[in-house]
Amino acid sequence: MPKVNIGEQGFIYPMPMTLVGADLASGPNFMPIAWINRVQMSPPRLAAGMNKAHATNAGIREHGEFSVCLPSVDQVAVTDWCGLNSAGRGADKSALFTVVRGNLEHAPMIAECPLCLECRVFQVVDLGSHELFVADIVATWTEERFLDDAGNPDVTLMRPFTLTMPDNRYWAVGEQVGKAWAEGRAFEGA
Amino acid sequence: MPKVNIGEQGFIYPMPMTLVGADLASGPNFMPIAWINRVQMSPPRLAAGMNKAHATNAGIREHGEFSVCLPSVDQVAVTDWCGLNSAGRGADKSALFTVVRGNLEHAPMIAECPLCLECRVFQVVDLGSHELFVADIVATWTEERFLDDAGNPDVTLMRPFTLTMPDNRYWAVGEQVGKAWAEGRAFEGA
Repeated sequence: MPKVNIGEQGFIYPMPMTLVGADLASGPNFMPIAWINRVQMSPPRLAAGMNKAHATNAGIREHGEFSVCLPSVDQVAVTDWCGLNSAGRGADKSALFTVVRGNLEHAPMIAECPLCLECRVFQVVDLGSHELFVADIVATWTEERFLDDAGNPDVTLMRPFTLTMPDNRYWAVGEQVGKAWAEGRAFEGA
Repeated sequence: MPKVNIGEQGFIYPMPMTLVGADLASGPNFMPIAWINRVQMSPPRLAAGMNKAHATNAGIREHGEFSVCLPSVDQVAVTDWCGLNSAGRGADKSALFTVVRGNLEHAPMIAECPLCLECRVFQVVDLGSHELFVADIVATWTEERFLDDAGNPDVTLMRPFTLTMPDNRYWAVGEQVGKAWAEGRAFEGA
């Protein structure tokens, strides 16, 4: 086999960048999280792996609610700043954004982000250093200007970005390379 | 607030496309999975949400092992074909690839994919229709030609692709838009 084993620290490429919003004792807080994804269609659920030491984890555990906001490529610097600074060490990240609320009491969202999900915790899985928050998505907030003709969020309008590790680089979304559950119909290799 | 609530079916943008490999009674099988991500640094763990009805789930439950392979943009059609066809209905997806093995007995990998992770199940979380496989990453197989000068996998050489839902489109990775844990140092909005 031509492959080489580079060890246990393998990653998925690329990983979506989000800002997770939670209410802490100090107020609303936002933390960059790339270790997150949908995990079930119905009821709609996502899961996020987050180090237990984060101030955000305590807020989510206390209230059982949080938000997941997708920053755009225009928000790379402020998103990264949120990762370099900690509410636990006194940073007030809510001052950087227009904080808005939806249907939940404790899921602070960022008005400047093109899309935000409101989430209610379904289960917390203890992974060791991290905990996995498995949560129901209860609402999806976006703006009309980010929707395509079918009423779906359009990634070319929202312009989210992704992360690769351990090289620690951010990437825009590139060109469309196919249509899912469609492209394979023309595949003749089988 | 300018935002509108488009409902509970909100997604993360974009989601990484992978092919999950497992040993079934019929032989090695590969299923496209975009609902997957890293969830812990050490020990390195990932999580994947997969509908219990899939033949692949049964194979993973039986052996407690699976692989996660990242197809490249050159493999969009074959990846999509794997999602349109089911081993449970007789499709032999292993015939489409060169199947290779690493350190685990039941984690079949695809030689043609630029990067594959070998995984051992840590915990299975029942989500309802889906189950969440939380797994330890035990090895990362790639090729020298996909590594950068620092020895890390380079997304511009591997050329993976992503998925957006519910519009069901595949996307290449775009241009680099920043350096993580660095870009924020120059942010002056705080």
